[in-house]
Parts: sequence; structure tokens; C-alpha cells
Amino acid sequence: MKLAGTESKKAGLAPGTVLHIGDSDYKGFKIEVYDFTQEKLERKDLTDPAQCAEYLSTDTVTWINICGLSRTDKIEELGQVLGLHPLTLEDIVNTNQRPKLEEHEEYTFIVLKMVYLREQKELMAEQLSMIAMSNVIVTFQENPEDVFGNLRKRLESTKTPIRKRSADFLLYALIDSVVDNYFEILEWIGEKVEDIEDDILAEQPVPGMVENVYNLRRDLIYLRKVIWPTRELIGTLEKTGDGEFWKEDTRNYLRDLRDHSLQILDNVEVLREVLAELVTIHLSAISNRLNQVMKFLTIISTIFIPLTFIVGIYGMNFKFMPELGWKLGYPGVMIFMLVLAVIMFFYFKKRKWF
Amino acid sequence: MKLAGTESKKAGLAPGTVLHIGDSDYKGFKIEVYDFTQEKLERKDLTDPAQCAEYLSTDTVTWINICGLSRTDKIEELGQVLGLHPLTLEDIVNTNQRPKLEEHEEYTFIVLKMVYLREQKELMAEQLSMIAMSNVIVTFQENPEDVFGNLRKRLESTKTPIRKRSADFLLYALIDSVVDNYFEILEWIGEKVEDIEDDILAEQPVPGMVENVYNLRRDLIYLRKVIWPTRELIGTLEKTGDGEFWKEDTRNYLRDLRDHSLQILDNVEVLREVLAELVTIHLSAISNRLNQVMKFLTIISTIFIPLTFIVGIYGMNFKFMPELGWKLGYPGVMIFMLVLAVIMFFYFKKRKWF
Amino acid sequence: MKLAGTESKKAGLAPGTVLHIGDSDYKGFKIEVYDFTQEKLERKDLTDPAQCAEYLSTDTVTWINICGLSRTDKIEELGQVLGLHPLTLEDIVNTNQRPKLEEHEEYTFIVLKMVYLREQKELMAEQLSMIAMSNVIVTFQENPEDVFGNLRKRLESTKTPIRKRSADFLLYALIDSVVDNYFEILEWIGEKVEDIEDDILAEQPVPGMVENVYNLRRDLIYLRKVIWPTRELIGTLEKTGDGEFWKEDTRNYLRDLRDHSLQILDNVEVLREVLAELVTIHLSAISNRLNQVMKFLTIISTIFIPLTFIVGIYGMNFKFMPELGWKLGYPGVMIFMLVLAVIMFFYFKKRKWF
Amino acid sequence: MKLAGTESKKAGLAPGTVLHIGDSDYKGFKIEVYDFTQEKLERKDLTDPAQCAEYLSTDTVTWINICGLSRTDKIEELGQVLGLHPLTLEDIVNTNQRPKLEEHEEYTFIVLKMVYLREQKELMAEQLSMIAMSNVIVTFQENPEDVFGNLRKRLESTKTPIRKRSADFLLYALIDSVVDNYFEILEWIGEKVEDIEDDILAEQPVPGMVENVYNLRRDLIYLRKVIWPTRELIGTLEKTGDGEFWKEDTRNYLRDLRDHSLQILDNVEVLREVLAELVTIHLSAISNRLNQVMKFLTIISTIFIPLTFIVGIYGMNFKFMPELGWKLGYPGVMIFMLVLAVIMFFYFKKRKWF
Amino acid sequence: MKLAGTESKKAGLAPGTVLHIGDSDYKGFKIEVYDFTQEKLERKDLTDPAQCAEYLSTDTVTWINICGLSRTDKIEELGQVLGLHPLTLEDIVNTNQRPKLEEHEEYTFIVLKMVYLREQKELMAEQLSMIAMSNVIVTFQENPEDVFGNLRKRLESTKTPIRKRSADFLLYALIDSVVDNYFEILEWIGEKVEDIEDDILAEQPVPGMVENVYNLRRDLIYLRKVIWPTRELIGTLEKTGDGEFWKEDTRNYLRDLRDHSLQILDNVEVLREVLAELVTIHLSAISNRLNQVMKFLTIISTIFIPLTFIVGIYGMNFKFMPELGWKLGYPGVMIFMLVLAVIMFFYFKKRKWF
Repeated sequence: MKLAGTESKKAGLAPGTVLHIGDSDYKGFKIEVYDFTQEKLERKDLTDPAQCAEYLSTDTVTWINICGLSRTDKIEELGQVLGLHPLTLEDIVNTNQRPKLEEHEEYTFIVLKMVYLREQKELMAEQLSMIAMSNVIVTFQENPEDVFGNLRKRLESTKTPIRKRSADFLLYALIDSVVDNYFEILEWIGEKVEDIEDDILAEQPVPGMVENVYNLRRDLIYLRKVIWPTRELIGTLEKTGDGEFWKEDTRNYLRDLRDHSLQILDNVEVLREVLAELVTIHLSAISNRLNQVMKFLTIISTIFIPLTFIVGIYGMNFKFMPELGWKLGYPGVMIFMLVLAVIMFFYFKKRKWF
Repeated sequence: MKLAGTESKKAGLAPGTVLHIGDSDYKGFKIEVYDFTQEKLERKDLTDPAQCAEYLSTDTVTWINICGLSRTDKIEELGQVLGLHPLTLEDIVNTNQRPKLEEHEEYTFIVLKMVYLREQKELMAEQLSMIAMSNVIVTFQENPEDVFGNLRKRLESTKTPIRKRSADFLLYALIDSVVDNYFEILEWIGEKVEDIEDDILAEQPVPGMVENVYNLRRDLIYLRKVIWPTRELIGTLEKTGDGEFWKEDTRNYLRDLRDHSLQILDNVEVLREVLAELVTIHLSAISNRLNQVMKFLTIISTIFIPLTFIVGIYGMNFKFMPELGWKLGYPGVMIFMLVLAVIMFFYFKKRKWF
Repeated sequence: MKLAGTESKKAGLAPGTVLHIGDSDYKGFKIEVYDFTQEKLERKDLTDPAQCAEYLSTDTVTWINICGLSRTDKIEELGQVLGLHPLTLEDIVNTNQRPKLEEHEEYTFIVLKMVYLREQKELMAEQLSMIAMSNVIVTFQENPEDVFGNLRKRLESTKTPIRKRSADFLLYALIDSVVDNYFEILEWIGEKVEDIEDDILAEQPVPGMVENVYNLRRDLIYLRKVIWPTRELIGTLEKTGDGEFWKEDTRNYLRDLRDHSLQILDNVEVLREVLAELVTIHLSAISNRLNQVMKFLTIISTIFIPLTFIVGIYGMNFKFMPELGWKLGYPGVMIFMLVLAVIMFFYFKKRKWF
Repeated sequence: MKLAGTESKKAGLAPGTVLHIGDSDYKGFKIEVYDFTQEKLERKDLTDPAQCAEYLSTDTVTWINICGLSRTDKIEELGQVLGLHPLTLEDIVNTNQRPKLEEHEEYTFIVLKMVYLREQKELMAEQLSMIAMSNVIVTFQENPEDVFGNLRKRLESTKTPIRKRSADFLLYALIDSVVDNYFEILEWIGEKVEDIEDDILAEQPVPGMVENVYNLRRDLIYLRKVIWPTRELIGTLEKTGDGEFWKEDTRNYLRDLRDHSLQILDNVEVLREVLAELVTIHLSAISNRLNQVMKFLTIISTIFIPLTFIVGIYGMNFKFMPELGWKLGYPGVMIFMLVLAVIMFFYFKKRKWF
Repeated sequence: MKLAGTESKKAGLAPGTVLHIGDSDYKGFKIEVYDFTQEKLERKDLTDPAQCAEYLSTDTVTWINICGLSRTDKIEELGQVLGLHPLTLEDIVNTNQRPKLEEHEEYTFIVLKMVYLREQKELMAEQLSMIAMSNVIVTFQENPEDVFGNLRKRLESTKTPIRKRSADFLLYALIDSVVDNYFEILEWIGEKVEDIEDDILAEQPVPGMVENVYNLRRDLIYLRKVIWPTRELIGTLEKTGDGEFWKEDTRNYLRDLRDHSLQILDNVEVLREVLAELVTIHLSAISNRLNQVMKFLTIISTIFIPLTFIVGIYGMNFKFMPELGWKLGYPGVMIFMLVLAVIMFFYFKKRKWF
């Protein structure tokens, strides 16, 4: 995830210019259509945006999922078919948007960030733009990977509520899939935090720990940046839920969604705070260790430096050093030094240096 | 307490799926019923959810307490008896909920977190879901341990207000028991903080102190996460207290409850701040100690290293070293070194190194 | 001051249970009555709560001051005389309340924290509960010590406004005495902070300073916890000042009180921030000192360790060491070492190590 | 500037007691009167407060400036002449007020803090109280020094707007002078911060820097405490600007004033943040330096301590040490030690210790 | 960028004094006029402000761009031509304004801060004041450098929306150019942060890094100070967009602008937080390194200091030291010392010091 967007590519361009801005290197373009009533479900892959026009006037519920934003010509064509405002098109292909909800006369435009794990170890973020019309939901994603695997399975079954209800429930189910996936991410981060916690409380330096802590905190900063506006967006959805689009009962589901977003924010904050505590604890543990090392060095030095000085004295070559001739000189010095060492040992003991 | 929930198990499942998610390993299922008027009290243990139906239509006040959430079949059956919305059922068995209050047409749904001490040393958190109907209060908990011991005793006595009043007071009394227990937890944490305070101010490193501080701060982070929405919930209760459910006088009790929740939050914040101060004080004490150790080492080294150099000079084996032959060479060097040591001693004294 | 209350003693008890909870060891019970009009003042000490009843129906202004909360039987009796709600009685004897204001039909219930200095060195906090009725103000305190010494003197004089006005001004004067005393406490803390400031800026470690800083910050945390809700309470008083109880002109005085509470909060924040700055400055001064100590040690070691090595060389007993026989060997080595020391001295000088 | 006021002197006194509380040692009392219309200006020095009465009933605009608050008898006399509330008088002479605005029936009472530099090096704060009546503005300051030098000059000229307009513009001009002076203070602090920045980035310890940083941060804490309520006050002025007192066009000027107060607060915050950054940078630079010093010491010690040990071996006086008799013993040991030193040198080089 | 403005130059001057205050050393004065309808575009350079008068009454859209604020005589002349309030003129030439929007009767006055990179390495900030009238937009900048290069190009083309629409769209396009440029700045800062991140995570001290971090944080503090009020300003624009000036469709563009400003603020906060994390990580890495260095020193010292003491003993010159005469004395001591060294080596190994 990049720290700051690449918006600047378009600094100075006319507003409404449809220029693809994003990090994804997917160059393809796919249109996946699910058209269903409770009784029957049709799944098609299209290549021509113009073919989408036919679904706009039917009574069936339709989910049109577009993968790939680099083909701006196709996107613009689709925009004309669906009657989208130039600024909406610009926002769809510029993947540095903030999650937001815009009411237009003919449609509602929603931008979300889809976050998922690639190979259980790398966090990927992808912009998901949605156009909600009365019977049609159009989604735009940057590359084919997404979080809708389970949703597609549920669509196959005639018994799931998604097949029984209208387009508002499909929209809810899509947003719900995105939001539910944040839980998975947080759980994955939570496990990593617990690993780091074990390492830090064991006071055992582990190579790369500092880098791991930093990466997790950066991920959490990113997630918070993404989830805060998502929460606002869901709150707006819930409030504006009175319109024709939303059926009465779906509002309970929107409330559920808002609870989830609050829960996710709570968890992000808790994880951030716990990581901050861990860093404090870690710094205090390092300082403690340093203290111990220094005490050890000081004890060794304080005992042996004076002793070395004493043996140095009797290593001098003066002619007239009477002690050198004494019979008890050598054992006397040895005993004196031993006594000195013992005294210093107990001095440190008394001052509780070890 | 886990850092992040295990919500992800259900990522992608259809909303309304009744899947048990929780850490509790209790596998049983118990229904405990208290059915009472002021005159008489009946206490029963049921096993079949269908039996609960009869209490819905009587005039007596009934508390139905369910223990065990792993038997989702039973929960679903009970849900049908009580007429609960699928999302409500989903929230009851998924124990990662945020404390919240949901008004439904036929009932009010409340989620709380019950926190208690196991064996005076481990903090346990358990989800408590409540369904409030006109005469019946249904509570769902994860395992049989709970904080309602005193409440049960008060129910036995005909003189307590709880027997004299209607279901709204029972609901209040249940919430009050949960909230009152937070005080116990905070007092327990407060005592632990005071122990740590004593250790830190005594500037005496105690093994495991760093870990203790960390665990307390983590507990407080968890408590705050749980109590903030509880306070909101109680505020909502107080505001919506105008409906038919709440009798006039109970509102005074709800106000009392809100005061308690504010007090608890105040105390959580105070404990957090005091712990933060303690960590700062601890770090500054460690630094002070390190300074003292280093000064000690420096004094010893600075006095003896030059002296050892001097005795080294007269330990050299040069043939032509006139001093070695002097009668006063040895005592002269000794006196010189003594003077040097005394000068350095006073130098350090003057610079207030000890 | 305790970190967390002892509320838990009553966890699980029925709400409205009048159980004394507090740290005060005062076991007595006193009723002090001031009954006055502008013309005459009567001061009595009662022992029987029933005697208070007579003052409720007179036209004179009456201040009934109760000391001692351990005699809950007396308190309950008084509660019946005055017509207090059970929850009010519970809050009076449970001294862990948050400052608050509750409007009841027959009276207004106010809880404050009275903070004063015992022997100019220990901060004492005591709960002050007040019942305001049309002509009677009843105050409950934990022990006989209080902050109303000056107020009692003013009551003796017929010229002070307090004698000329009605019960609302007495209530204002009581609250004002409590709030004014916070200024005294803050001034006392301010002086202590300035002492610590002097010590820290003198960069002179003073024993116990770390502990002093900690205690002051803990006191300020406590004060803020107490004064925040007091400020809200006074704001509420000012807003609800339209009722019959408050006479027109007293509102100016309430506004004055609110200004004072804002000023106190400002000062608490300033003192907290200044203390935080002082700790930062202290830590940075410790680090600076450590740097100097280490530089000193390094300079001494770097100069003498190589020299000691050199004299060690010429202290070796090899038979074939030509230098040992040279006439100029000894002075040569001495000069060489002197040159080496001078070079290192200037090296450190150039790198600005001292 | 004192940390906490001396309000406590009056703890327990009756509200409305006119007792002078302040740090200023100015004992005089001066009344300076500017009475003007566009055509003519009269400047007088009075000593008797009663003389001010005449200006209340004229049509001319009058500025009465009082210096000196210790003569409370004079202030009280003036209070009676102007018809001021006892609490207003109390606030005028008690210089620990918070900046505030109070609407009274006959006048508006404004308290500001005038901050100026004494001799370009010491920050002085003085309370400025203002009474605004229809044609008369009365200002009270603690001592004769003030920030109105330019305003007085502008009053002399018949062409400045201040002479053309009514009392509302005079009041605006007085407040504007106080607020504009905050910019001067901030600029002076800004320059000091830039000096410290240079010192810290040069990584050159400068004596007294820690104290300078602390003093600046304390000044900024004080300024923020003073300017926050000033901003509120100006906001209130702007909102209540509809009354008779304010002429239509003056509101543009009040808006300008509000912009200035916001700008000042922005700058205070920026300076505080920059100083906080500087302290962090300073601490990290100290740590870096300590690391370098310790590495240096460790390199020197690690190279020479083993070498000294080796030469010590050959300084032993054992009779049977064959090496001592070898012809190449001495040069062999010397070369061995050289090789050892070179190896260690490259070891440190490789680990990038220097 | 200066920390605090130079507003003080005018402290005490009459409000409305047109005095140029700014850091720019540009002394010229230029008037650049773009006058256009969809069909034709005229571009002129004027020198006399009076010439601008003619554009006020035409139907064409006109952009008058003024460069250079030091010629206050010209600015004042232009002010009279356009009918600007004296306070507006004062704000235009005083470049320490906060971004703001002021509605006047005849025009809207907007102040922005234009931030751009000079030679890809230095951040420059310049005040941009705008006067919006029904058909004319007048902009004032400090020096000829600006961010409108692309806008000028788009003006040349008849097909861009800017040529097709009225003055409101021109105003929007000007603000949009300023806001879009913030993205470029943030991207540039983001890249620098990522460079620092690489250095810090490589745990490789890079000279000047501390200074770089500080400069980036200072830049971000400045940007936040500038962008916060810009966001408010755009919000106000959007809300007041109902007037005659704004055409219906432009509001969509204003919403887009608000989204951008929120996005920029998000990014500023993220960058600030990431930098704060990096500093924490850096400090913890320094501490870790110090620990390793000290451990290394302690190991070397602890092994060799006692050994040096032992060889010192046998270097003493006592006559009666029996060991000196033993045949196995020398190898015995050598082996003893080797054993001692090995024991200490394993002791450190066991305590995981390396």
C-alpha cells in the first residue's frame, strides 16, 4: 500500500478527464453478469459494454461486475450506456478515492476499499466502485481477485434471501462481503500482534521484530483511514434508507452493518493501543537489560581494576622495595586482595546490584 | 481475552446464519426459569425451548435464563417460540458483538459484556444477550458462571422491590448487576496498580513487573472498549424510557445506572493515566539508576586506570631508569599516586558525581 | 486518595440499600443547625434527626449540617423526615459518587467533592452531599473537618449578603466555598511544581523528586476527575436557574461560579502540561548527563589504555629486546607516550567532546 | 508569569469583596481621559473618580483609562459613579480572571490579558478590564505600561477612522491593539524557536538550551490558556453585534478580529508542535551521539585489552618460560599483536561501526 | 516557510492600512487578463489598474491575474476600480492570512495558500487572494510563479468545459488547480518518507536523517495548518452554493473538491502518523544497537580483565613466590586462564548475550 496516492499525475488536467490512476498491473477487461429472479439465474461473460444496456429495462435483478480499469475507452462507453456523470467516471478509474457515497439523480455512487490477504501474508487493497440503480448493481474492481467468492455461491442457491429479495439486498450483501472481510484482516493482524507480544514479554530480542511492529502499525493506520469513511458511508445509507430503493426490512440489515463497522473500528483502535503499549514495554525492557549489562560490567571492573593496580605495584622494579623481600609478602598481598574483593562483593550485594 | 474476534469464520456466509462463534468451551444447554408475582415465586429448570411459550401470555413476571450457546438448534427453536428476527439470533450466538440496544417491534434486544474474576486472578468476559418483552426477560449467557448470585437471593425474598415491581425493574436489576460488577473488577485492578506503584516508587526492580503493567493496561483497554458502548446503551435506555415498558419510577434507577457507568469510565481513565504516569516514572528511574551506575564505573576507572599506567612505567625493564635506583623512589611514587587519587576524588566530589 | 472506589462491597445488593461506603474513620454523628433571618441567628447542635422537622415549615432560612455517615440508622431516619428517595439516601452514604445534580420533585440533590489540605502537606477529599429545599439546605459530610470556617463567620454578621437573602444564596455560598478551596489546593500544587522546576532546571538530582512528580500528577488526575463534573453541574445550575428557587440576582453569582470552575480547569490543565514538560526536560537532562559521563570515561580510557599497553610491552621479560639496553630507551618511550596523549587530547578537542 | 493564581487569599471571603489580588507592585493610581468628537480632542489627567461622572451624559466619545488597582477605595468610588455590580468590581481588582465577556443591563464587561515584551526579553502579562457603555469606554490596567502607544497617536489625528466613528469603534480599536500585540509576542517566540532549531540541527549541545526550550513551551502554554477564551469572547462579540451598541460596518472589523485570533491560535499550535518535534529530534540526536561514543570506547577497549593481556603474559616472572629465551620471541609477539589489531579493526569495519 | 508571521510590523497601525507584509522579494507588478467566451479568447498584459474597469460591465468571462504585492499604490488603485473594502485590500497585501472566505455585498473574497515545489526540492508557499464577481475573477499572487500552467493551456482550447461555462466554473477551476497541487506535494513528501523508511528499517544510520525527518514533519505541520481552513472554506462554498453566482451543475464539482480536500487531510494525517512511528522505531533501533555494543564491550572486558589480573600476579617481584619456580607453573597458569575464558564464554552464551 502506498503512503500517498499518485493523484498528481492529473494535477492540472480538466476535471472529468477519465484517466486511469492506480497501482494494479492488471491490463485485462472483463464483464461478468448475474441476472436473476428467485426462480432462475443466468450467468454471462460479456466483452462489449453496449450489451449491458438490455438489463437496465428488465424486471430481474442484475449484478454487473467489471474487472480492470485500464481500458478507459470501455469504461467511458459503459458510462454512456448507464448515463453516468463525467466526475463519476473520473472517480471510478482514479483509484485514490476516499470511501464515499454520492446521490445522483439516476443512481447512487458508492466507493469502497476492498482489503484482502494475498497468500496469507500480504495485505492487498483494491478500490471497489458501485453504481446502484433500481434493478441493477454495477461494480468496478481493479483486478479479478475479490472477496465475493461466498456471495457467488449463495447466488447459485434458490433458497438464500439474496435470491428472494430485490436489488437493495444485493447491494447490502456486496457491502457486507467487503466489511466482513475486514474482520478476517483484523484477526490476521491480531494473531501477529499476539506473536509479537509473546516475543516481547519473553524479553528475547527476535530479529526483524522492530520491522514487524512497524509494518503492523502502518497497516492499522491504513485500515483506520479506510474504515472511518466507510462507517460514515454506512451511517448515511441507514439514514437515507427511506427512499424507494430500500425495502423496509433491509434497514435491519443496514443497522447490523453499522454495528459491524463500529466493531471493526473498536478493534482497530484496540490493536493500535495494544501495539503502542507493546512498544513502550519493549523500550522499558531494553532499558532494563542495558541497566543489567552495565551493572555487570561495573561490578567486574570495580573488583578487578583496583586488584590489577595492586599487583602492578609489586611488579615495579624499584631496588628498594622492602615488602618484596618479606617472607609473607606474597601470601599477605594475596589475602589482602581476597579480602578487598569480598568486601566489594558484599557492598554490591547490599546495594542490590544483583 | 482475545485481541480481535473470530468473526471471520463467517465472512461470506449469508447474513442471519445462526453459527456459534465464541471462545467458551461449555457445551451444555440449560434453561432456568424464575416466574413470580409479589406473592409467589416458582423456579424451574427446563430443557425444551417449547416449554417457554406458556410464560409469554401470563401476567406474572418471568426471567428465562439460557446457558450455553453451542446448541444452535435449541436457540433457533427458542427464537421461533419468541418470534425473534434472524439477525437477532445471529447476534446472540456470535459472541463478538459490541454492547448495543436494538428496538424491534415486539421486543428490545440488548447485548452486554459480563466481566468477572475467576479465582481472584483471571479476568473473564462473557457475552450476555437480553430479550425484553412486556412480561418476560430472556437472558442468554455462554456458560453457567455469572454475576447474578445476589440477584437470585433477592428474588427469593418477598420484600425486595424486585418482587413488588414489573418486568422493567427486573431488566434494570439485571443490567445493574452487570454494571456493579465492573466496580469489583476496577477495584481489583486498582489494588494491583497500587502494588506496582509501591514497587516502582521503591525503585526496586521486581521480576515480571513489566509484564504485569502490560497486562493491566491491556485489561483496561478491553474494559474501556466494553464500557463505552454500555454507557451509550444506558443513555439510550434512559431517553427511550417513555414507552409503555418503563414504569415512571424506574427512570430514577436508570439515571442512577448512568451515573454508575460514568463513574466506571472515569475510574478506567484514571487508572489508565496513573499507569501511564507509572511507566514514565519507571523509565525515568531506570535512566537515573543507569546514570548512577555509569558514574560509579567512571569514577573507579578514572582513578585506577592512570595509577595502573604509572605502576606499569616502573615495571618496565629498561636498563637505564635512574628512578629505580633512588632510595625514595618507591615511597615517592606511592605518595604521588595517593595525591593523584585524592585530587581526582575531590574533583568528582566538586562536580557532585556522588 | 484511593485509585478506585470500594463500590464493590455492595455489588449485587438491592438498589436503594443504605450502606455506608467510605474511607473516613469518623464514627460520630452530629447535627449542626443555623436558622436565621436578617435580624436574628440561632445556632443549635441536635442529636435527634426528628428535631429537624420543625425547620421545614418555618419562613426562616435554615442550614442543617450533618457530620458522620457511619450511623446509617440516623441518616435513614432523617431521610424519612425530609422525604428523600431511597436512591438519594444510598448516594449520600456511598462516598464514591461522581459530582452530580439531580432534580427531584421536592428537592434538588447535589453531590460535590470537598478537597482540603491537612497540615499543609496532605490532600484530603471528602464527599459533600446537599439537599436544597425551598427554605432549608441540608449538607452531609463524612467528618467534622470542612471548608466552611469563613462562611460560619460571615453568618454571624448581620451585614453580609448571606443574611439578607434567601436559601438560594446560602446554597450558592456553600458551593462557592467548596470551589474557592480548589484554588488554594492548586496554588499549593503550583508552589510544589515551581520547587521541582527549580530542581530540574538546576540539573541537580534531588532524592525523591521522581516520587514527588508522580504524586503531584496523581493529585492533578484526581482533581480533574472531580472538577470536570463539578463544572457541568454548575452549568446545569445556571441553566435551570429560572425556577422558583433561584432569585433573579443570584444568577450573576452563578455565572461567577462558572467562571471560577473554568479557571480552575484551565489551571489544572496548565499544571499538568507544565509537569509533563518538566518530565520531558528531566529525561533529556539525564540523557545529556549520561552522554557527558560516557564521554569523560571514553576520553580517560582512550588515552590511558594504549599507554598502559606500551609500558606493558617494555615490562616483558624477553631476553632479546634491544630497546631495553638503549640509553635513551626510557626517556624516548616517555616522550613518545606524551606525544601520543597530546595528539589524542587534541583529537577529542577537535571533535568537541569537551 | 505564575503557574497558578493567588486567588486563595480570598477563599472564604464574601463574594463581591473588593480585594486587590495581583503580582504588580505598582502602587499609584491614575485616570487618563480622552474625550473627542471628529472635530476636537481633549486629553486630561484626573485624580478624583467623581470627576468621571460628567462624561457619562455627553454626546462625545470618551475613553477613561485607569492605571493602578491597589487603591481599591478609588475603584469602589468609581464603581458607584459608573453603576457597576459588586461582582464586576471584584473581578476588576482580582487579576486572576479568565478572559471573558459579561453582558450587564447598563454595560458590557470585558476582561482581556495584555501580553507584552519588557526590554525585548521578558514576557509580561497584565489584566485589562473594560467597561463599554453607550458613549464611554473605561479601561482598567494594573500598571502604566501598555500596548496603546500607537492608538494614542492615531487619536491625535482627525483623519483616522477612530475619530470619525462612535464608541463601538473605539472599543474595537482597543481590543485590536491587544490582539495585534500577540502577533509580536509570537514572532519573538518564533525567532527564538528558530535559534534553538539551528542549535539542535547542528547537533551541538549549547548550555542552557534545555532551559530555553522549557521556558518557551511554558510561555506557549500560558499564551494558549489566554488566547482560547479571547477567541470565544470575540466570537460572542461578533454574534451579539446586532445590538444598538455596534454600528453596521464595525462588524466587518470584528470578523477581521476573529480571523486574527484564529491565526494566532494556529501559530501557537504550530510553534508548540515544532518545539515538541525539536525535543524528539534532540533526544534522538543525543541517543545517536551516545551510540557513537560507546562504539568508540568499545573499539579502543576491544583492541587494546587483549593486547595488554598478551604483554602481561610475557611480563610474568616464571623461571621456565621458553619463549622468553627465543631470539625471535619479541618481534614475533609484536607482529602477532599487530596482526590481531588489524583483524579486529577490519571486523569492526565490516560491522560498520565506523 | 517561516514559523510565525511578520504581522507585528503593523501592530498598532490603523485597521485598513494597506501595508505589504510578506517574504517574497519580487518587486514587479503585472496584470494578466484572459477575457473569453466559448467562441473567442483574448489575452492581454496591462500595467494600469484603471484599464481593468472595462471588463466589469461586459458579458464575457474575465480572469484578471495580478502578480506582485509590493506596489501597494497600484493595488489601492485597483481596489477603487473594483470597489473593494479597505480591510479586503489590507488582507490581500498582508500575506500572513489564514485561508478564508468572506462574503461581501458586491463580491466574494477568498484567500488560499498556493504550495509548490521549486526545482523539485524546496517547498514554496505563496498567498493567493481571489475576488469573485458575477463575470470577473481577480486573483492576486506574490510572484509570477504559480500552479496555473495547465489551466492556461486548457483556456486556449475551445472544447474544454471552462470555455463553455460561466465565471463560477472558472473560480472552481482555479481553486481546483491549487488543491490538486497539494497532491503533488504530498506525493513528493510520501516518496521522501519511503526513502527514510528504507534507511531506518535497514538500521543503517544515514547522516542528516534526523534533520530530514524534522523537516518533513515541519512541512506536514505547515500543510495541515493551511489545508484545515481550506477544507472549511470549500465546505462553506458548497453550502452557500445556492446563490446566483453558482450554476446548478457546478455543485457536483464543488462536492468533488471537498472530497479531494478530505483526502488530502487524510493523507497528511497518515504521513504524520507514519513519520511518528518511524521515529519511535528509530529510537528503539538505536537502543537495541546500544545494548548490543554494550554487551560486546562487557563480554570482552569480563573475559580479559580477570586474566590480566592473573598475569599481573605472576609479574610481581616478590622474592618468595614458590609457583615461579615450578616447572609447570607457566603452562599451568596458561591452561587455567584458558579454562576460565571458556567458562565465561559459555556463561554468556547461556544468558544469550550473543
